[in-house]
Amino acid sequence: MKTLTVDLPGRGYDIRIGAGLLARAGELCRGALPNASRLFVVTDSHVGPLYLGRVLPALKAAGFETAVSEIPAGEHSKSPAMLARLWEEMMAFGLTRTDAVAALGGGVVGDLAGFAAATILRGVDFIQIPTTLLAQVDSSVGGKVAVDLQHGKNLAGAFWQPRLVLMDPDTLETLDEGTFSDGMAEVIKYGCIADRDFFDFLTAHPSRGGVMGEIERVLYTCCDIKRRVVMEDERDTGLRMILNFGHTIGHAFELAGHYETWTHGQAVAAGMSWAARLGERLKVTPPGTAEELQGLLSAFRLPLDIPCGGETMAEAVGVDKKGKGDEITVILLSRIGAAAPTRMKKAELLSRLKQLREEERT
Amino acid sequence: MKTLTVDLPGRGYDIRIGAGLLARAGELCRGALPNASRLFVVTDSHVGPLYLGRVLPALKAAGFETAVSEIPAGEHSKSPAMLARLWEEMMAFGLTRTDAVAALGGGVVGDLAGFAAATILRGVDFIQIPTTLLAQVDSSVGGKVAVDLQHGKNLAGAFWQPRLVLMDPDTLETLDEGTFSDGMAEVIKYGCIADRDFFDFLTAHPSRGGVMGEIERVLYTCCDIKRRVVMEDERDTGLRMILNFGHTIGHAFELAGHYETWTHGQAVAAGMSWAARLGERLKVTPPGTAEELQGLLSAFRLPLDIPCGGETMAEAVGVDKKGKGDEITVILLSRIGAAAPTRMKKAELLSRLKQLREEERT
Repeated sequence: MKTLTVDLPGRGYDIRIGAGLLARAGELCRGALPNASRLFVVTDSHVGPLYLGRVLPALKAAGFETAVSEIPAGEHSKSPAMLARLWEEMMAFGLTRTDAVAALGGGVVGDLAGFAAATILRGVDFIQIPTTLLAQVDSSVGGKVAVDLQHGKNLAGAFWQPRLVLMDPDTLETLDEGTFSDGMAEVIKYGCIADRDFFDFLTAHPSRGGVMGEIERVLYTCCDIKRRVVMEDERDTGLRMILNFGHTIGHAFELAGHYETWTHGQAVAAGMSWAARLGERLKVTPPGTAEELQGLLSAFRLPLDIPCGGETMAEAVGVDKKGKGDEITVILLSRIGAAAPTRMKKAELLSRLKQLREEERT
Repeated sequence: MKTLTVDLPGRGYDIRIGAGLLARAGELCRGALPNASRLFVVTDSHVGPLYLGRVLPALKAAGFETAVSEIPAGEHSKSPAMLARLWEEMMAFGLTRTDAVAALGGGVVGDLAGFAAATILRGVDFIQIPTTLLAQVDSSVGGKVAVDLQHGKNLAGAFWQPRLVLMDPDTLETLDEGTFSDGMAEVIKYGCIADRDFFDFLTAHPSRGGVMGEIERVLYTCCDIKRRVVMEDERDTGLRMILNFGHTIGHAFELAGHYETWTHGQAVAAGMSWAARLGERLKVTPPGTAEELQGLLSAFRLPLDIPCGGETMAEAVGVDKKGKGDEITVILLSRIGAAAPTRMKKAELLSRLKQLREEERT
């Protein structure tokens, strides 16, 4: 088992990484929650049947009284209505301020359960047990929790740090190819923004089997990078924006597919590819970087481009939560392994992207 | 204008108290929000028609682009569904992370709008403009925001400090007698738990007219006491519980009337009266204290007792959010002007209350 500690003022916590940890969930949760008597477990209709049988007996053996809420799998469960349902279920269970909530599943489960934990009784302790690659390397670490609104994803939420993040790479074995690749987009992102050696390692292991052979190292490296960024900027007012590499343009691609045609990871992959090309054009990024990145993305069957009209791109840039007025910060690369946040006019960004798109067509 | 400053780590703010301040809302909000361009104003169907005409022009003159959401007056608006409605309206307005939300109204408006502000885009700045006595002396200060669930009041929420609390005692002139008395219960509470001189001052001014003649002093004194308690214990893990004097038993009275027959202030008044009698019986409180308190409550037409069965009392004590296991902390008085948090078995509390009730009947 590998352990990383996230030091934050008043709310530090451990990330535990290791094969077989699900069966040890009881002792690990008890260590993080010495005084809780009840644990409200949120999972979904895909993950529950696979892993509740391993997790619940362990929790009970550690003295937790448990209740389970199994939400329908899928992004549409990350809604205000489902949040209200969880709140009522938690109170029906008899949850008190010294009890806790656990999320067993992917990003949807973690974001929804975390927001419910942040707000029920004005906040109770929270445990993340992420079961997808995307959730393990990204959404379970850092304390961002949310639900989606009609106006967009993750628009209502909170910063609520877990007391423990427990990840068992064995859960990745049951992921389908698409879901695994989806997570690889974020894995590759960490190499791009912060760790050239890790990027090279991935390039030397360009397959699911290669990555799974060293999965604890991969998870540890990604979580360590995210941990360091979050410790510097918990509430996302500065450095944390480097984690958005590929995400602004990726957001446009998600919109273009109405959040259905393309997964988050696919959109981020294409977004990173475009951001690298944009960086080269602006002479922020050395020539050849986009090609190198694209090679690695392709190895994991991630798209390098996604059809997207100018209006959709403008919408994505305009309604971006990070946008302030006319300007936007786009994360470019000064090289593979180093992010370069770059402030520019939204209009300039859009015209540059249009230009790149047109050159590609000719 | 009187000013109190609430010093909290990273989020201090001012409470401004003064007749006519509504008309100066623009400059005061601009001082607290130098960089906001949009201000989303939440009010209700009673308060909006009375005061929006004074507040909106002031906000616009200070350069704020404004939108107003007028919710139906009444506790039933403090719901998850109304929260979700506000979230969508805020996004439709184009709110960004550097913009802000303002609450113009009583406790329902402040609690709901505050929770929406705490969570939209994971938290934006928030201004309280309380217009009832209860909201001015209690709910607008301290950062507790929430909605009600089917299982009870204030069960989902957050701690979210405002950037400014702006109170204009002129708004109290339009309150009906019942609503004014309702607020007086909390005013009297501050005297009981923290300030004998203030209690004596109220005893010497035992009418609405008497209190209104010195209203800035009254508001200042109450907010100063609450401010000091909140600064010691922002997240309600210790000292802050003294603010619950009268509230545990009062909660039973609210339940007994299904939150309709009795207002919060009436229930708290009767709860304080009972807590004083209980304290005398337990020899924590000097003899004669209950009688003195009851005299002051009666002057403001507040009830000293409310019919309530033993089962309802047990429910209130059992589901109390502050309850941990078998024991409960009840706030008694060691004298008028000093709270005495007292730990006891829930069963003992209930049997003592039953005993007091039976003696009264004979």
